Amino acid sequence: MDGKGKERHADDLFKEFKETSITEFFRKNKTHLGYSGSIRSLTTVIHEMVTNSLDACEEAGIQPDISVAIKKLGNDHYLIRSEDNGPGIPIRHISGVFGKMLAGTKFHRNIQLRGQQGIGVAGVTLFSQITTGKPIKIKTSTGKGKVNEIALMIDIAKNKADILSNNEYSQYWRGTEIECELKGVNFTLREQGPFEYLRRTAIANPHAKITFTDPEGRRTIFERSTEKVPKPPVEIKPHPKGTEVDDLVNMAKITDGRKVSSFLTSTFSRMSNAKVKEIQKIINEGDAPFDLNKSPKKLTWAECEQIINAIKEIKFLAPPTEGLQPIGEEQIRKAILNILDPEFEAILTRNPTAHSGGVPFQVEVAIAYGGQAGRNIGDGTKVEIMRFANRTPLLFDSGACAITKSVNSVEWKRYGIKDFDNSPTTILINVVSTYIPYTSAGKQSIADDEDIMKEIRMALMEVGRKYQIFYSRQKRDMEKEVRKQILMRYSTELAAGLANITGKKEEEILKKLNTLVLEKLKLEDELDTLEEDEEEEIEDDSGIKDPEEGMVSGAENGT
Amino acid sequence: MDGKGKERHADDLFKEFKETSITEFFRKNKTHLGYSGSIRSLTTVIHEMVTNSLDACEEAGIQPDISVAIKKLGNDHYLIRSEDNGPGIPIRHISGVFGKMLAGTKFHRNIQLRGQQGIGVAGVTLFSQITTGKPIKIKTSTGKGKVNEIALMIDIAKNKADILSNNEYSQYWRGTEIECELKGVNFTLREQGPFEYLRRTAIANPHAKITFTDPEGRRTIFERSTEKVPKPPVEIKPHPKGTEVDDLVNMAKITDGRKVSSFLTSTFSRMSNAKVKEIQKIINEGDAPFDLNKSPKKLTWAECEQIINAIKEIKFLAPPTEGLQPIGEEQIRKAILNILDPEFEAILTRNPTAHSGGVPFQVEVAIAYGGQAGRNIGDGTKVEIMRFANRTPLLFDSGACAITKSVNSVEWKRYGIKDFDNSPTTILINVVSTYIPYTSAGKQSIADDEDIMKEIRMALMEVGRKYQIFYSRQKRDMEKEVRKQILMRYSTELAAGLANITGKKEEEILKKLNTLVLEKLKLEDELDTLEEDEEEEIEDDSGIKDPEEGMVSGAENGT
Repeated sequence: MDGKGKERHADDLFKEFKETSITEFFRKNKTHLGYSGSIRSLTTVIHEMVTNSLDACEEAGIQPDISVAIKKLGNDHYLIRSEDNGPGIPIRHISGVFGKMLAGTKFHRNIQLRGQQGIGVAGVTLFSQITTGKPIKIKTSTGKGKVNEIALMIDIAKNKADILSNNEYSQYWRGTEIECELKGVNFTLREQGPFEYLRRTAIANPHAKITFTDPEGRRTIFERSTEKVPKPPVEIKPHPKGTEVDDLVNMAKITDGRKVSSFLTSTFSRMSNAKVKEIQKIINEGDAPFDLNKSPKKLTWAECEQIINAIKEIKFLAPPTEGLQPIGEEQIRKAILNILDPEFEAILTRNPTAHSGGVPFQVEVAIAYGGQAGRNIGDGTKVEIMRFANRTPLLFDSGACAITKSVNSVEWKRYGIKDFDNSPTTILINVVSTYIPYTSAGKQSIADDEDIMKEIRMALMEVGRKYQIFYSRQKRDMEKEVRKQILMRYSTELAAGLANITGKKEEEILKKLNTLVLEKLKLEDELDTLEEDEEEEIEDDSGIKDPEEGMVSGAENGT
Repeated sequence: MDGKGKERHADDLFKEFKETSITEFFRKNKTHLGYSGSIRSLTTVIHEMVTNSLDACEEAGIQPDISVAIKKLGNDHYLIRSEDNGPGIPIRHISGVFGKMLAGTKFHRNIQLRGQQGIGVAGVTLFSQITTGKPIKIKTSTGKGKVNEIALMIDIAKNKADILSNNEYSQYWRGTEIECELKGVNFTLREQGPFEYLRRTAIANPHAKITFTDPEGRRTIFERSTEKVPKPPVEIKPHPKGTEVDDLVNMAKITDGRKVSSFLTSTFSRMSNAKVKEIQKIINEGDAPFDLNKSPKKLTWAECEQIINAIKEIKFLAPPTEGLQPIGEEQIRKAILNILDPEFEAILTRNPTAHSGGVPFQVEVAIAYGGQAGRNIGDGTKVEIMRFANRTPLLFDSGACAITKSVNSVEWKRYGIKDFDNSPTTILINVVSTYIPYTSAGKQSIADDEDIMKEIRMALMEVGRKYQIFYSRQKRDMEKEVRKQILMRYSTELAAGLANITGKKEEEILKKLNTLVLEKLKLEDELDTLEEDEEEEIEDDSGIKDPEEGMVSGAENGT
């Protein structure tokens, strides 16, 4: 057909205009949720079940005791069962949790939890039903004497639960059990399979006991290594600096506050009366001054923009961080020594800070070198990067992840790791935040965020410097040992000669000479230690590879 | 808090259970749509506008004439305007296109289009409104004498258009103009900015004329290089092999067909009466035979599963491919010679095949070496990978993309490209399909799909072998030139000596000797050509790097 071919009219083209439900959308685009490929799909199911259990236990202040069992029913065909001792799900919410997407308790709250979208476990129902036509089965009780056993599917066109059966009976028990049947999945012991997923979950959640039964019936128990239940995550008010004009407009619409001033102090963290006065002052100096005593309902977009612009000019305390729950240095060290038994390890928890202006987050990193560190690939070792977000392992989409990009942006040679990619190094990075900006609903990779990447890089450079000191000390120790042996050999020969000349006893002379050598070496040691102390004080931020290149991703940000 | 701390009851934890609209979801998770960072956000907006225009023109059989203009209004603050000569949007659908997510014409159809989700341009409305509070402005007419100028925003909680103004007037004109105001974005001339996006769009869409006006007022016109409008994409029936049990169950529910047999032949492509008979035969041999003359409405899941299992055992013709629109070798060669002026180029279009069982797709690759090929990075060159999906450039998330992974899985050394990463090579890959499995709603990276990755690798190895022949010929030519010069020098000296001995004229002897040398070299040439022909016939599929590693991503698949 050439340019003069028959053209079609718009009415014709739009005759198939239809609406799609969110469930239909994710049914078609199940790769967005992590359901791509038989191995990943199975890990995604386990991931959704376990994160839900951990979140529920943590919120309820319960020590988690979680079991996962995978049973093979046929080729590509498995039965998955998970159990927890969590708070249970009130009967009226079961449909919402398992049978509806975009419904849940986590979406609207500013709180550090593993789930944050209200999609996850309903995605399991969907995946199970489209691969086997079977409902998901849930047994749950909140511990008040009633247990419910429910089988449900999702009505995909309506994004709504379709309850097939509900058996209620009396029993005092508390927890949730989920059972689903899947096809098109496959169990593997490899890095991206359920075993490694649960092992890493145990590393990042030392307060949890996790039992795993694989399809061959082998049971692994990851015992908890601490009795301390993390403090339940705290919902924190948004920080002024993290607020966009549009947020403020929406908040102002629904507030009960009668004045903008009290609305501001009650809505935001770190917003004192003094800060409101500062905002008022800046507004008064502007082109269109208005009074912060007016009703929030009457705020225009332009006025909200003035408030946000004023906020940008004012200093605020950093966002409160009592809501952030890192794994903790002590726990990470325990896990690393236990699993990797490395020659060297360094662990670092950075201070909490904020991304996107005001969303609190915190970065933990650990580096382990030698021993069992690194990824064994048969005839060699490759560097291993263990990524975590809110203590949840990220096993997929590493290439697109801000964590991987940050690790690759560090010039490891500077710190004495020459062939970093092929070195016996394990790097563990955990980012915790009340909001993790994932690249996709599958939540396996963190979007390039300037602030997050900067924090990760700073942390890596800090542990890098620690490695460097270890490395130069190790190198020096080796050199010293060589020198010592040369000097000792020399003194043995010298002693014989001197004994001949002086007529004194060879042993005595040798002893004195050796003392001399050792004293000299000890003196050198002390000098070294002094030098090292100086080295440690050098703040050096230039360990970033090709700053221009590094900035490309940085510059992708800036909102 | 220790294990005996106060536990909280489920009722307490669920008191904030809420539903979220799809727009609220993407408002919070705007990174999923590609709105992360100031540079990427701007490119995403341009991308959504241009793909909509191209799709509309292609469907209507119109030669696209598209203009994009970016105007800077302030720091991080821009006005974007796009215009097309497309079919226009019927007035009753404007709200659905721009003011509602998950509504549109593309989602339900099995058709190759750039958009496929029904989110894109409503995402522009959302992003513009949350950054500036301003509506998106649309001027559109289907060419029947009425023009509408509409300003609208999205009611986020309801996922519904909120029309602020609608000015209708009489004029004969056809097309769509969109204008929106954005904050938090930034214009760049770099690889990930709008200019490069449009340049690559022009490469992959040589039938389109694209005019771009940048914030400095510079206008670039990418003229169309062909007058041929691609055939409008054809909706094709699903292929039996690409159908899952769940699909069949749903199709059977809504069909008008009175018998399963006629339902099957009318619903699927390549499903003849003979194939239905084969299915019946397999079912009859099974444990629970049933008659395909029954009503489709009465099909159970188990019966649908039997049908799907029977389909797996039967051979079908490959899916029809008249719906697939690759760029075409000729167009790619033109673009590459024009832009890169390389020393060597090879272009290849593989035959169409199917992913996920029955979704048709096709891969085109091109390799260019030398000249302007590769990515200039100041003091050197790096390999450049231009990714396209349905002729749309993919500029972001390359690390997670099946295209990048496929390129990296090829052992380029085998084909004579030693330091591939730093070589002056440009690789262009375009995947076209009626359904592209993206990793995310942002549609910048293709999920690992075994079939797609295999096709890309096969294509790359084929062009790799072509490069290898070019490379060895080039190497041999150089060696031959050196030999020729040595032999010539030798004959000059020999001629002088022989002239002395024989008394004949030196020039004559030299002439004879030179003829001898040239004949010998010519003979060698001929032999080489014979050898090359043989080489070209060698089918060698082993150019994959570390097959075990390559299979990891492969094994992630298998659904």
